[in-house]
Amino acid sequence: MSIPELQWAQVAEKTGGPLVYKQIPVPKPGPDEVLVNIKYSGVCHTDLHALKGDWPLPTKSHLVGGHEGAGVVVAKGELVKEFEIGDHAGIKWINGTCLACEFCKNADESVCPDALLSGYTVDGTFQQYTIGKAAHATKIPKGLALDAVAPVLCAGVTVYKGLKESGARPGQTIAITGGGGGLGSLAIQYAKAMGLRVIVIDSGDEKKMMCESLGAEAFVDFSKSKDVVQDVKAATPGGLGAHAVLLLAVAEKPFQQATEYVRPRGSVVAIGLPAGAFLRASVFSTVVRMINIKGSYVGTRLDSEEAVDFFARGLIKAPFKTAPLKELPQIFELMEQGKIAGRYVLEIPE
Amino acid sequence: MSIPELQWAQVAEKTGGPLVYKQIPVPKPGPDEVLVNIKYSGVCHTDLHALKGDWPLPTKSHLVGGHEGAGVVVAKGELVKEFEIGDHAGIKWINGTCLACEFCKNADESVCPDALLSGYTVDGTFQQYTIGKAAHATKIPKGLALDAVAPVLCAGVTVYKGLKESGARPGQTIAITGGGGGLGSLAIQYAKAMGLRVIVIDSGDEKKMMCESLGAEAFVDFSKSKDVVQDVKAATPGGLGAHAVLLLAVAEKPFQQATEYVRPRGSVVAIGLPAGAFLRASVFSTVVRMINIKGSYVGTRLDSEEAVDFFARGLIKAPFKTAPLKELPQIFELMEQGKIAGRYVLEIPE
Amino acid sequence: MSIPELQWAQVAEKTGGPLVYKQIPVPKPGPDEVLVNIKYSGVCHTDLHALKGDWPLPTKSHLVGGHEGAGVVVAKGELVKEFEIGDHAGIKWINGTCLACEFCKNADESVCPDALLSGYTVDGTFQQYTIGKAAHATKIPKGLALDAVAPVLCAGVTVYKGLKESGARPGQTIAITGGGGGLGSLAIQYAKAMGLRVIVIDSGDEKKMMCESLGAEAFVDFSKSKDVVQDVKAATPGGLGAHAVLLLAVAEKPFQQATEYVRPRGSVVAIGLPAGAFLRASVFSTVVRMINIKGSYVGTRLDSEEAVDFFARGLIKAPFKTAPLKELPQIFELMEQGKIAGRYVLEIPE
Amino acid sequence: MSIPELQWAQVAEKTGGPLVYKQIPVPKPGPDEVLVNIKYSGVCHTDLHALKGDWPLPTKSHLVGGHEGAGVVVAKGELVKEFEIGDHAGIKWINGTCLACEFCKNADESVCPDALLSGYTVDGTFQQYTIGKAAHATKIPKGLALDAVAPVLCAGVTVYKGLKESGARPGQTIAITGGGGGLGSLAIQYAKAMGLRVIVIDSGDEKKMMCESLGAEAFVDFSKSKDVVQDVKAATPGGLGAHAVLLLAVAEKPFQQATEYVRPRGSVVAIGLPAGAFLRASVFSTVVRMINIKGSYVGTRLDSEEAVDFFARGLIKAPFKTAPLKELPQIFELMEQGKIAGRYVLEIPE
Repeated sequence: MSIPELQWAQVAEKTGGPLVYKQIPVPKPGPDEVLVNIKYSGVCHTDLHALKGDWPLPTKSHLVGGHEGAGVVVAKGELVKEFEIGDHAGIKWINGTCLACEFCKNADESVCPDALLSGYTVDGTFQQYTIGKAAHATKIPKGLALDAVAPVLCAGVTVYKGLKESGARPGQTIAITGGGGGLGSLAIQYAKAMGLRVIVIDSGDEKKMMCESLGAEAFVDFSKSKDVVQDVKAATPGGLGAHAVLLLAVAEKPFQQATEYVRPRGSVVAIGLPAGAFLRASVFSTVVRMINIKGSYVGTRLDSEEAVDFFARGLIKAPFKTAPLKELPQIFELMEQGKIAGRYVLEIPE
Repeated sequence: MSIPELQWAQVAEKTGGPLVYKQIPVPKPGPDEVLVNIKYSGVCHTDLHALKGDWPLPTKSHLVGGHEGAGVVVAKGELVKEFEIGDHAGIKWINGTCLACEFCKNADESVCPDALLSGYTVDGTFQQYTIGKAAHATKIPKGLALDAVAPVLCAGVTVYKGLKESGARPGQTIAITGGGGGLGSLAIQYAKAMGLRVIVIDSGDEKKMMCESLGAEAFVDFSKSKDVVQDVKAATPGGLGAHAVLLLAVAEKPFQQATEYVRPRGSVVAIGLPAGAFLRASVFSTVVRMINIKGSYVGTRLDSEEAVDFFARGLIKAPFKTAPLKELPQIFELMEQGKIAGRYVLEIPE
Repeated sequence: MSIPELQWAQVAEKTGGPLVYKQIPVPKPGPDEVLVNIKYSGVCHTDLHALKGDWPLPTKSHLVGGHEGAGVVVAKGELVKEFEIGDHAGIKWINGTCLACEFCKNADESVCPDALLSGYTVDGTFQQYTIGKAAHATKIPKGLALDAVAPVLCAGVTVYKGLKESGARPGQTIAITGGGGGLGSLAIQYAKAMGLRVIVIDSGDEKKMMCESLGAEAFVDFSKSKDVVQDVKAATPGGLGAHAVLLLAVAEKPFQQATEYVRPRGSVVAIGLPAGAFLRASVFSTVVRMINIKGSYVGTRLDSEEAVDFFARGLIKAPFKTAPLKELPQIFELMEQGKIAGRYVLEIPE
Repeated sequence: MSIPELQWAQVAEKTGGPLVYKQIPVPKPGPDEVLVNIKYSGVCHTDLHALKGDWPLPTKSHLVGGHEGAGVVVAKGELVKEFEIGDHAGIKWINGTCLACEFCKNADESVCPDALLSGYTVDGTFQQYTIGKAAHATKIPKGLALDAVAPVLCAGVTVYKGLKESGARPGQTIAITGGGGGLGSLAIQYAKAMGLRVIVIDSGDEKKMMCESLGAEAFVDFSKSKDVVQDVKAATPGGLGAHAVLLLAVAEKPFQQATEYVRPRGSVVAIGLPAGAFLRASVFSTVVRMINIKGSYVGTRLDSEEAVDFFARGLIKAPFKTAPLKELPQIFELMEQGKIAGRYVLEIPE
């Protein structure tokens, strides 16, 4: 496989953009790295945050965004044992970590303080050839469609990790707030595949139908309910409340409700990073009911492979539309306008 | 042992008091209950809350307060197998639970929705003879001083439970906010006995000396520190932050600091029930660092026996002063004025 | 509901039998007990062991066997809060425990040293009216067929507990030896409902078809395989071996094989009580691969309710044949001859 | 720091020896490796097994043994971030692993199928300069005596890991068979530091005194006891048996006894690799009492750093004698004759 000197990429030459679609050099992998020829890359809301510089953490300058890339390994460093040339690999948000700190050594590399973030602190997947640390690239079994698997690498892994963190066991009930959205539809499917019973809190009949068709046992429409807390509890066995709650979009009111309809000893798992938001809960209720409030970020390498495995077994459907890499600016525009229903997956030019 | 018809008790004839020291009938145990001749009873801040009706949950009318009682079993119901007449027993906050709900069946009886609360929803230990559900009375080994063990039944158990809930393992570091107070001095000792390394956050040189003499490895004086978060982190191995935090008095600022100096993946355990207080934490930091915020209430039956066992082995010293039962009103007065340093233990008349 | 003085029962007047079908008095519940009018009772191999006195533990004399009984609560003691008259209830192997020992207090009542065993140390369900401790009788939702649920109370609970003990998580692989038998078909279904991937080790094309129709992903026929260990490993992701093994009939060879095809860090869970059998494993392999060998006995009260809940949700089918109570001797005869394919459920006379 | 071309080493030119004390080339570290100038190396029984080829797994030819080495980092590869030149580092049994397999990614690298073993499949610490994968070398805080810490790297870590695997919590009781030997004295100290209560099973008054002085609460002398099982149980709270057992030398009789004196739901942890030995346990007792039998091998990177940390805090004393590297053959001779009481630590020439 011959690797060109130059490649096409979407480059943010400065924070806030605009994106420039141009040719840039193809990088060379270091001893512990792989070079992946990206075939498809999902577009995540985080990519827009990165472009706009919304978060406190600064991005790389001249940034190539993207962190849901699926492709083929075309070169690798001398130490790489995980991949052979020609293997399929995914590049996810965590591009690499130090593998040396306490967290990395404890299989908690997601919280490594020196993590490299794809499309944020290192160049990502909105280009033809992306570097990834071999230890962190996700193995993708051959035969799996690379366009369909791309969004699993971030959206899928994130909800799967949240479900693991919830501690809910097969047969128990999980409430998913925002279950009718893109993350939510993945979360419902993972939850079902993990033997959980699902209650969705969201709004609208269209979302209700979609959630129920994916296996949700109950749907509480917050736009119609007179008492969300009571309605969720009523939908749980014995009326005791949900064993765990997955909060896909953390805002103050849903969070506070979640701490009320979760069962004593249950967990409320917060996912998502709205700028400047705060969790707020009554001390009395949290203490007396012994509630557990957890933040869940992204999956580890193993979580990622597990999430892909559920997908590979046909248990997860993630609807998406494709568009060519050069149309990324238009997709970001639609995203800002809130006009994207499912997930966009970019076709990276050959 | 002959049991009288009447006994001395401190009775709150109405919410808010005053307490009336008078003779009332001695109750008779039901089939699953024991009657305990109380010898000593600790006085806890909760008893004052109960008298004054500070909390949303209503108390029994004509209430006999108290929930740290140690004494001798003098009668028991036909089903009682746990105790023989003459055994020593403790009456704690959880007087009884349904033993039938999901939580009771899962050894989480502390969150049983039908729990009977000593000195709150049923009569407590500020009297000579107290009824307790045999399943929930705590076995006290003979030979243990009943005055000294009394405060262990509530204060000791509560901090021990919080330490268990923290998930901190032997060799790891726990930060204890308010470690210089009454609960704190017990918490330091339990933490040490459990193999933990202790950092205390509190104020004043007297408390510093006391904490260090009990085994705290570091003391951060919040009244002098320019940056509590940095100072706590600096006192932890690798500067990564504490593995867990025990918050003995939940207030907003210490809570928020705790979420910052706890290590990624660590736990912040809230104990204590200030009226109307709220937990508040940044979503970004909680999620990205995968922090766990937990409420810890009181111990289970097993936790209580374990906490007493640590005490029985001589690992825990709980300083206290004694006073006769009839002086309870004066003790409450001192308590309201914040003038009590250690714990008061009431001598119940023979 | 009027309760008669006398009832029909199958009584083993001495160890070894014969069974006598006769009228005996209807017992009266104590303060913490329920009287259940049994409608159906499963027949388990353990009942035959009890009759014959096969095990070291002596049985009650004049024993009424049976421990898979489903019926209606017709009387209850004064302390019983779990059940109302008319509720449906199951009587399982653990009829009652002390609720006072360390194990009971830790929700491990299955290993209570003072457990009462239905149809073994107390009279069981081969009669019209059976006493059960209210705390241990299993709630059966109305609307559930009492004949179909009866075998779930022992066979279903036992395999469900074993699967929980295995520690296998959703998405992981469990190998079930003897998966083609009665317990096995339940185990496959529970495993699937818990999100596990199943490999069965058993023999014969009929069992193979049955197991695959229930959802097993692979079937290793030990009567045809040249290398069972290699064949099981080959059927697991990455060829690394099963994450856990459920041994439904413990014999030395399958056990030893299980310790070889289980993945490093995996668990081998032994169920079943063959008289005089021994586990035997190489120290080198157990240590170097850090394998976990566990015995799993029966479920707790909560496990039982969970197992019934999976059944109630339609996820478990347990095929059975019915026969009248008076034909129990003939059923035992068939059982001794190994001629029973599914489960027999006795119809108890009105 | 200048690194010579040649160094002194003890080389086993063929399996079975003899050892040749000679000069060999100093190796050069790869990109992810460190070169450690060994100052001291412990001598472990495993080194003798390696020399003699006792185990099924073949050793490297022209082997330099040793896997308890402490020294100074003198060179490192380009990818190494964990260590700076001049740092103190330990080389332990696991010299490196693939960091890419499921086990490595799950922080269970001890069971990595591609592990490099110091002094077994790669050259070890019986030489002046040893290569180690940087990710696996153990950080040793400056100020710690390198001779004293050397045996902690294998013996200390191994017992610490076994104690962690036992699942025993602070306040619970652990029985240590062989607690009077070298590993045992370390195990007692680690157990105490972890808040555990210790019962030792061993023989002889000298060992009894030593164990009690280290903090063991009871000592059962198997050479004098008429019933070891009863005596151990009698020494545990409530006579219920030990919460866990650490088997430092696995032989059939002590193992079987351990499964009897362990508490229901307790764990028996096997350490040590006697050639050709087997675990053997009654199915009935293992199942009915729900016992857990676990093999524990060696510690992970994190376990190793934790074990060193306990030592650094002064909680562990490991008595040892020193001898020059060239006397290794004589030490092996003493070892074969069973004449070594404590641990030998070799002084590696400057």
